Amino acid sequence: MKYGIAVFPSKKLQDIANSYRKRYDTKYSLVPPHLTVKEPFEADEQDIQTLVAELRTISKKQKPFKLEVLKYSSFYPATNTLYMKVAENDQLLSLHEALNTGSLYRERAHPFVPHITIGQEMNYDELSDVFGRLKLESVDHEETVDRFQLLYQLENGTWTVYETFLLGEGDS
Amino acid sequence: MKYGIAVFPSKKLQDIANSYRKRYDTKYSLVPPHLTVKEPFEADEQDIQTLVAELRTISKKQKPFKLEVLKYSSFYPATNTLYMKVAENDQLLSLHEALNTGSLYRERAHPFVPHITIGQEMNYDELSDVFGRLKLESVDHEETVDRFQLLYQLENGTWTVYETFLLGEGDS
Repeated sequence: MKYGIAVFPSKKLQDIANSYRKRYDTKYSLVPPHLTVKEPFEADEQDIQTLVAELRTISKKQKPFKLEVLKYSSFYPATNTLYMKVAENDQLLSLHEALNTGSLYRERAHPFVPHITIGQEMNYDELSDVFGRLKLESVDHEETVDRFQLLYQLENGTWTVYETFLLGEGDS
Repeated sequence: MKYGIAVFPSKKLQDIANSYRKRYDTKYSLVPPHLTVKEPFEADEQDIQTLVAELRTISKKQKPFKLEVLKYSSFYPATNTLYMKVAENDQLLSLHEALNTGSLYRERAHPFVPHITIGQEMNYDELSDVFGRLKLESVDHEETVDRFQLLYQLENGTWTVYETFLLGEGDS
């Protein structure tokens, strides 16, 4: 089974992201707007309880983090993807690292660039046109993230949430 | 903000439901296959923490329940909807009742008929054709549900999970 770990930002930010995704994101209908904190990985369905137990321990130790979007960016020419760039901070990086320990460890395909995708598989002309406009826009969005979601993928490519994990509950 | 409370069945059952939903359900892309345990309701975004606290108390007191699908059925002529009929049982009914207490109380528009929708807003000919075939199929699916999800609706009509609640955790 394919699993993934993601953060759904506030409704406000999801609605903004969707206003672009609707037109520019080929995966618009597969999952709500999100910040991936662990790339999709394969795990046996029977191992889900071990996985969940590890995630509970991790989430308690980790802290809520600031999700700050300051600008739009693109992965071009690697991929024709447009995204909201999420500022790095210690809590977010720490969470990302923790989610790659123990039985969750997987070799990473590429470095962690925190982002919320708003367009992908765009043709070049559209990408440069939209990105050209978005570069001029100032974004200044900040919110606190206190949870992440473990999701699994269905046969049709869509993602279903299995469980929510609250960050830093160990403190309370 | 519009909230809803639903159960996502196993991947296996979701995949079966989606094989029909893809063709027959106009809301296919808005939410994964689900059993609604509380109809969508309006609540202030500021009241979410009160809501969540109540849901935690309820989920601890309620028990995991058996989700049993024995046949396909239809709401026709009320609506042109096709669904997997979920057998009633005490735990499921108790959960449904509990989710309509305290600040969660809302007047109900119709009686609770546990189901997983596989087609809606179908034209009559299609509905009677597909339902005619499905009536001949035997279904005998049983699984244990140990969680439910609080979701909220985005502006584009899709649903995002806010939090997962585990049933009966108070016992452990």
